[in-house]
Amino acid sequence: MAKTSVKKLIEQLSKKKIGMYRKDFLLTWEKTPDELEATFIVADILRAMREQNVSPRIWDSGIAVSNFRDNSTRTRFSYASACDLLGLYVQDLDEGKSQIAHGETVRETANMISFLSEAIGIRDDMYLGEGDKYQREVAKSLDEGVAAGVLPDRPTVVNLQSDIDHPTQSMADILHLAHYFGGLDKLKGKKIAMTWAYSPSYGKPLSVPQGIIGLASRFGMHVSLAHPKGYDLIPDVVELSKKQAKKSGGSFEHVNSMDEAFKDADIVYPKSWAPYDVMQKRVPLLHAGDQAGLKDLEKQCLANNASFKDWECTEAKMKLTKAGKALYMHCLPADITDVSCKAGEVAASVFDRYRDDTYREASFKPYIIAAMILLGKREDPVATLKALWDRKTIREVL
Amino acid sequence: MAKTSVKKLIEQLSKKKIGMYRKDFLLTWEKTPDELEATFIVADILRAMREQNVSPRIWDSGIAVSNFRDNSTRTRFSYASACDLLGLYVQDLDEGKSQIAHGETVRETANMISFLSEAIGIRDDMYLGEGDKYQREVAKSLDEGVAAGVLPDRPTVVNLQSDIDHPTQSMADILHLAHYFGGLDKLKGKKIAMTWAYSPSYGKPLSVPQGIIGLASRFGMHVSLAHPKGYDLIPDVVELSKKQAKKSGGSFEHVNSMDEAFKDADIVYPKSWAPYDVMQKRVPLLHAGDQAGLKDLEKQCLANNASFKDWECTEAKMKLTKAGKALYMHCLPADITDVSCKAGEVAASVFDRYRDDTYREASFKPYIIAAMILLGKREDPVATLKALWDRKTIREVL
Amino acid sequence: MAKTSVKKLIEQLSKKKIGMYRKDFLLTWEKTPDELEATFIVADILRAMREQNVSPRIWDSGIAVSNFRDNSTRTRFSYASACDLLGLYVQDLDEGKSQIAHGETVRETANMISFLSEAIGIRDDMYLGEGDKYQREVAKSLDEGVAAGVLPDRPTVVNLQSDIDHPTQSMADILHLAHYFGGLDKLKGKKIAMTWAYSPSYGKPLSVPQGIIGLASRFGMHVSLAHPKGYDLIPDVVELSKKQAKKSGGSFEHVNSMDEAFKDADIVYPKSWAPYDVMQKRVPLLHAGDQAGLKDLEKQCLANNASFKDWECTEAKMKLTKAGKALYMHCLPADITDVSCKAGEVAASVFDRYRDDTYREASFKPYIIAAMILLGKREDPVATLKALWDRKTIREVL
Repeated sequence: MAKTSVKKLIEQLSKKKIGMYRKDFLLTWEKTPDELEATFIVADILRAMREQNVSPRIWDSGIAVSNFRDNSTRTRFSYASACDLLGLYVQDLDEGKSQIAHGETVRETANMISFLSEAIGIRDDMYLGEGDKYQREVAKSLDEGVAAGVLPDRPTVVNLQSDIDHPTQSMADILHLAHYFGGLDKLKGKKIAMTWAYSPSYGKPLSVPQGIIGLASRFGMHVSLAHPKGYDLIPDVVELSKKQAKKSGGSFEHVNSMDEAFKDADIVYPKSWAPYDVMQKRVPLLHAGDQAGLKDLEKQCLANNASFKDWECTEAKMKLTKAGKALYMHCLPADITDVSCKAGEVAASVFDRYRDDTYREASFKPYIIAAMILLGKREDPVATLKALWDRKTIREVL
Repeated sequence: MAKTSVKKLIEQLSKKKIGMYRKDFLLTWEKTPDELEATFIVADILRAMREQNVSPRIWDSGIAVSNFRDNSTRTRFSYASACDLLGLYVQDLDEGKSQIAHGETVRETANMISFLSEAIGIRDDMYLGEGDKYQREVAKSLDEGVAAGVLPDRPTVVNLQSDIDHPTQSMADILHLAHYFGGLDKLKGKKIAMTWAYSPSYGKPLSVPQGIIGLASRFGMHVSLAHPKGYDLIPDVVELSKKQAKKSGGSFEHVNSMDEAFKDADIVYPKSWAPYDVMQKRVPLLHAGDQAGLKDLEKQCLANNASFKDWECTEAKMKLTKAGKALYMHCLPADITDVSCKAGEVAASVFDRYRDDTYREASFKPYIIAAMILLGKREDPVATLKALWDRKTIREVL
Repeated sequence: MAKTSVKKLIEQLSKKKIGMYRKDFLLTWEKTPDELEATFIVADILRAMREQNVSPRIWDSGIAVSNFRDNSTRTRFSYASACDLLGLYVQDLDEGKSQIAHGETVRETANMISFLSEAIGIRDDMYLGEGDKYQREVAKSLDEGVAAGVLPDRPTVVNLQSDIDHPTQSMADILHLAHYFGGLDKLKGKKIAMTWAYSPSYGKPLSVPQGIIGLASRFGMHVSLAHPKGYDLIPDVVELSKKQAKKSGGSFEHVNSMDEAFKDADIVYPKSWAPYDVMQKRVPLLHAGDQAGLKDLEKQCLANNASFKDWECTEAKMKLTKAGKALYMHCLPADITDVSCKAGEVAASVFDRYRDDTYREASFKPYIIAAMILLGKREDPVATLKALWDRKTIREVL
């Protein structure tokens, strides 16, 4: 394989208008097309540098705060890998899962952990209506800390999954598509089916499907959102995706049938999520730590899910897609029928065929996160990347 | 703002007589005035280097052990930031909170974790009469390990809060004062009120007020210690502070009224702590894991606290201070009336006015810790700092 | 003490035939004599470099996964120290202690954590018949990930203790012996007594004694394995040790008496482990999380143990060894009579005399682990070590 030309990528980057310095990466729809592309390019640059044994380490020291209010293995490793690649030491902030800090506590903690910090990654996806708010509260506190001269510099906040968006996932997904189809411009006109799928679990956040429709609709794609009745996403995000699809020269349809969504699709993304009202009802129960109430809600939800067991990505369904060969995507782990459960999101034979693709999809995440951090922290990212490339510090001694 | 001259600070440092090499930082009163000043200067140097984008990284590899026998966010981050700044990787030693290791176990563990370690930070503040002892047991084990040729070098032990002292807090506090008033020498003659304050919580350690009176009394300050009856500190520490105050040309008064302490004070430090006998009674209960007993003791203690709700740092009380403008200090988090609780240590309007000051106060802690480690590990710290400054390794690629 | 010559050691290494690149270190008996020696030499080189203040850091960035399915302080610190020495950032993979992942989950997780990883250390010693299997499943998944182009490089798996072997312990132990007796070749003809010893605890894994007999039998030693009836090791490992002993010019005896094993021994390794059938019975109970069943089994086991309280390494027993001066070894922590328990594995006076030796024994572990990683990751380790030595990056600024 030919080596990716880092120089060419840096040149491409230099043509983008980027205003991400001292900003955060919370929702993809807050970023301009140029900024999204810049993030993809920087991710590709960092990956190419590492592959060519040139260390893209920016910091000789510095802290990256890791704040996971929900369990995670994959995103945690992606974040740690990204930070380490740039030279940051990851320090966990563990506030306890059930207590959500507010007001004074957020302001104070945000400052206390940031004296020598460069980045703050936050996962807060369990509480509908709160995750994004919390991230903004942290961001505002940091702004105040910088303004007051308390903080020497503004750490950049990276949304590692909120109740609204999951940008490190959706950006990695789109970058994967760009590589798969041979360029970001190749996505124009492609049909992507973001559909609900059955799973014997409950309480899965809405942020993955929201993130996908909110981002795919920026690239001229034909977005088809499908789910059973009751499994709605946040209405604002659906509205916004519609408008974005139109503006970017694509389209947006919202249907209640997996088959309809799969029809002639170039890409399918079948994935379970919780009913909207369940996510709403969970919030007060989670706050109250009401285990019995949560158990009850789970029961209802699972019973409800069970009515839609036919929402499974089977071989028959795959046949409906373009030439029967749509690219299957998943953020992993998938609920695979007869493998991880009796009946799940996807048939084993379908998953088997696309396993390596889903792994490749995931492999972009560390670089996407590193790119987000770099762009939030560097006023002139082109100059920084040039300096790193010219410096040629070897990543590993061979 | 003019850049701090690192060269001048190093010159200042070179005039101090320092004997901290291969020693630990456990109690400030075990250090000479020159050593205290050296610690402040090194903290300022490390901060200035970082601000001027020169990496003060000493180690290309090395472990810093983090041993927290009590919960902590702030000190944990300060310690991690300090260690990372110097190039050390922080590895947690988690022995379980209820079991206090002794004898053979301490000796063995101290050696086992130290083969490639440079620093050991220990927080052990819950058990009156034991925290400092434990730290000394670790230190002694390390000495033996070095003597036996088992350890290649002596890691330095940093007290991150014991039952007796909290030197990383008090040293950061005094450095904050030095910057606030324009020099360490400006503290001479200033009145500082270290007073108890009401809080609806219990079991807060005595080490902060002890640390403050034990250190402020070294700089010619007029120290006023105030608390309700029964809220005594360790008598030896009070005695020692009296003597030190006299020797340094300051004074020490011990009163039972917040008003009296606040009168004409330049600095006020209103903060809750537990009654002395409660701290004593807690020890066997904690060892026994007697939850019911602890609950009972808590009840008594809170009822007792409630008699002293008027010990609150209100606007009225602040008016008693010098020109009504004393500097308010707190180690954070403060119990703020009507914000974090119904009635607390400080009125919201007072805290609001000084919030940024308390954040700035906290910002010195990482540098103080880094300075303590550096001075414990370098025989000729002046030479090391000169080498780091001349080397001019950039901390972050711009 | 004269400095160890790094150059001479590298020269020695260059004469070994090594095929460890892109392989794992799971069982010592899967390695050739040259590979075992190479591991010792590299460990000595890394130690010497560090002692001479030359940083053996290979990576400017990179992740080392730490997967402990059992508690650990010592091995955890050894692993962290080793990884940090080479420049890797340790990221914990915590899957929960009771759930053992299989199949799809292992395959997926192994890939998800490895995109930027160089090493994966796994401790999985509680489940007889499963630990080694799990490690191989991870290894196979990594091979597939590399073959599919999903992973940019093959992380090396290091067994930090399985149900079968504990190679980082046994290799450190043998390296300790080599240094103690003046060379690996001096082990030929020495008698080592690997014997069971009484302990008031239960469920200790079999992997330490198995690791010792499986490795000591490679160097022409006279291995004496002793334990009471019922405390058998995995039969295959005993068989293999017998064969190896013969092949290497040593011998192997299997006895039921501590005295017999100690007789004329040059080295004694008295250590408790669980009865074979207890280890087997524990597996389903652990999987079921059956606390009552485990408690019951513990009771039986402790009662059984109690019949063999005379299996203690006393002064009288030490007198039976060669000139009464055998070297006492232990992987630590030891159960010391009248110190850590009423009756244990070793008399206090014996342990006292050899304490520093056991600490020295442990001190080799970080370097052994680092050597295993280096040899699994470098195709031409001689070239790498030469480059590191010639580079002369200082480890700590003096």
